[in-house]
Amino acid sequence: MITDIINKKRLGKELSYHELDVFFNGYLDGKVKDYQMSSLLMAICINGMNEEEVFSLTKIFIDSGDVLDLSFISGIVVDKHSTGGIGDKTTLIIAPIVASLGIPILKMSGRGLGYTGGTIDKLESIPGYRVNLSDEEVIKQVQDIGIVVTGQTASLAPMDKEIYALRDVTATVSSIPLIAVSIMSKKIAGGADKILIDIKVGNGALLHTKKEAEELSLLLKKIGKIYQKEVHTMISDMNVPLGFCIGNSLEVMEAVRVLKGEEIGNNLTKLCIDLSTELVCMAKNVSVQDAQDMVMQAINSGAAYQKFLELIKAQSGDLKGMPLSKKYKEIKAEQSGIIQNISAIKLGELSVLLGAGRLSKEDSIDYGVGIELKKQVGDQVKKGDVLAKIYYKTLPHLHNFKDIFIIR
Amino acid sequence: MITDIINKKRLGKELSYHELDVFFNGYLDGKVKDYQMSSLLMAICINGMNEEEVFSLTKIFIDSGDVLDLSFISGIVVDKHSTGGIGDKTTLIIAPIVASLGIPILKMSGRGLGYTGGTIDKLESIPGYRVNLSDEEVIKQVQDIGIVVTGQTASLAPMDKEIYALRDVTATVSSIPLIAVSIMSKKIAGGADKILIDIKVGNGALLHTKKEAEELSLLLKKIGKIYQKEVHTMISDMNVPLGFCIGNSLEVMEAVRVLKGEEIGNNLTKLCIDLSTELVCMAKNVSVQDAQDMVMQAINSGAAYQKFLELIKAQSGDLKGMPLSKKYKEIKAEQSGIIQNISAIKLGELSVLLGAGRLSKEDSIDYGVGIELKKQVGDQVKKGDVLAKIYYKTLPHLHNFKDIFIIR
Repeated sequence: MITDIINKKRLGKELSYHELDVFFNGYLDGKVKDYQMSSLLMAICINGMNEEEVFSLTKIFIDSGDVLDLSFISGIVVDKHSTGGIGDKTTLIIAPIVASLGIPILKMSGRGLGYTGGTIDKLESIPGYRVNLSDEEVIKQVQDIGIVVTGQTASLAPMDKEIYALRDVTATVSSIPLIAVSIMSKKIAGGADKILIDIKVGNGALLHTKKEAEELSLLLKKIGKIYQKEVHTMISDMNVPLGFCIGNSLEVMEAVRVLKGEEIGNNLTKLCIDLSTELVCMAKNVSVQDAQDMVMQAINSGAAYQKFLELIKAQSGDLKGMPLSKKYKEIKAEQSGIIQNISAIKLGELSVLLGAGRLSKEDSIDYGVGIELKKQVGDQVKKGDVLAKIYYKTLPHLHNFKDIFIIR
Repeated sequence: MITDIINKKRLGKELSYHELDVFFNGYLDGKVKDYQMSSLLMAICINGMNEEEVFSLTKIFIDSGDVLDLSFISGIVVDKHSTGGIGDKTTLIIAPIVASLGIPILKMSGRGLGYTGGTIDKLESIPGYRVNLSDEEVIKQVQDIGIVVTGQTASLAPMDKEIYALRDVTATVSSIPLIAVSIMSKKIAGGADKILIDIKVGNGALLHTKKEAEELSLLLKKIGKIYQKEVHTMISDMNVPLGFCIGNSLEVMEAVRVLKGEEIGNNLTKLCIDLSTELVCMAKNVSVQDAQDMVMQAINSGAAYQKFLELIKAQSGDLKGMPLSKKYKEIKAEQSGIIQNISAIKLGELSVLLGAGRLSKEDSIDYGVGIELKKQVGDQVKKGDVLAKIYYKTLPHLHNFKDIFIIR
């Protein structure tokens, strides 16, 4: 009985494989209603799930669809995932770097939830770019040019797609077991041999403490082990935004600058180099130093950027005519001093108000709005200096710009 | 933002009057969805609400509709409520007893939730009985014959009706704060001067421990105080079913036997006498002994039964032609010994399987099915003795009859 299963989790008890199976597949069949699923999800958020339950639910999610067979690709296929954060456009940068080094990368990404657009939303800001490739097109493209970045195909872990959309609007996103199930079911169905997960921690991320990140990391590795997948994790900061741009087309243009080697030394570029280096280590049997040299070479030679252009072209995109709102407002420093902090969460909230992110499943995204930061944490500024440019269609209330920059 | 409110309760924080107001009235307006409400309700179930939150939510529930003005009725108007249990048909018995003693009783009851039909479902098993009286009809009938038992009118605490139906199917019923809000908002809107609440404790009840029952009792009295209503409570056992019958028409027929004085000394009759005595004490300024004498006289003289017949007639019901399934199965003792226990919860589960209760909001009830116990706890039985008769339309699997009776 459906409510008995919810009740059990309400009381903090363990659910069996059979109970989870009945409940979650019942949801796909329409027997379990949205309101019953969200009730169970909240009980899981608060009372947790043990490892057995996480393993069971991951299997149920994977079994809800196909598992991609990538055995036709020679060599080790790697996949990369980020738990997401403000200004996170790393996939757009890392995938071309790695592919330009001969490592095939087949990346299926999600839409935006919470504060900003997802990778797929960002790519859709490129006129013409196709994000809904079929399984056949995906396979052909990875064989042809060694890189695909597309939306999750409908056949892989369809359960996750349904549950994810519901979690987003019912405040049941922040659950380590549910995050682990969601990530690993997609990654395992995606068929890669080795998986790198970038776990973000901070006020602009799902996880707020390093302890939670470590807990998630351990859980991801344990799930991977069951499916003979090597899972690597990297824990990175999300208290300040990644890079300078937030908003879909702005982020694509920033990714282009990083790939061209025009952005050196900022937190975005550093993280992309670290993640790419790790992926190269995983795919090729080389030292960290050698891997990093290869990554730098890929950027400096222009090979990574060329691979990016190949990707855009293969998926029918055209970088000309990227949308950017003509209306903008400059945010100026109200005092002189040093920037102590730039709040990722407040920038995320602002980006939603601008229309760059979604509040509900049905919301559409405005690709040409966003925020371009002009200063970084640690920068000395004078009163009146421009801190950021806000590209808007409709300008949110002014109090929404307060408290983003802490200057002392 | 709706999800921010849910998130706050997920983290165990206090919600303000304003936040509760926005969320719950947003639900009535359709801005907050079913799946968002159930998510918040589950967070409340697990993380609780403090007294301030309970007072706020009670006010929001009351303010969602009208408050009945019963000042035109002379004397003290009493109301009675039971938190519900297996075989609980006490309202059908107590209301006529009390009314026959000249104490006006206006009882608005609910539909069945969880394991069995509610009072309204039971009354609907009487052919023709109307449960949807208008406010005007209610007032006229209580003036004419001093008794009304009807469904909650749409104008009283409509919020509760919506939330209650959702709680039932999302396993968010077992929450002391939510139970208190639901009971008190209906009772205060109902307009009675004094309120008696029968709080059931045991495996067949919402509350499983005496401690929880005492907590609820205290909370009910505190809410009552705010609205200048005297709230009395009685804590009664629900580990074994009340009386011998479970199922809608079976329970009406059992109530008739109690009112006729044909069922003496069993737990149902005893509880009905205790509750009626308390109500008489509350309404008239008499001693407990005098009140009990009046109650016994009401039964023995036939006055209570006559009042019951008046009630049924006034609401267009006809006791002739009560439905009862012709198909039945006798459950026999598999060993000799003494009956140690009859499980209320297992009988409740069986009654749902038979079709006497609801699994989802949309389910209809089969009035003519149910269980008639032939033995009581403490009875000596021989192997092969009939323990119960199961009236069915479709017979559930045999293993569902096991473990109801514990014989040693």
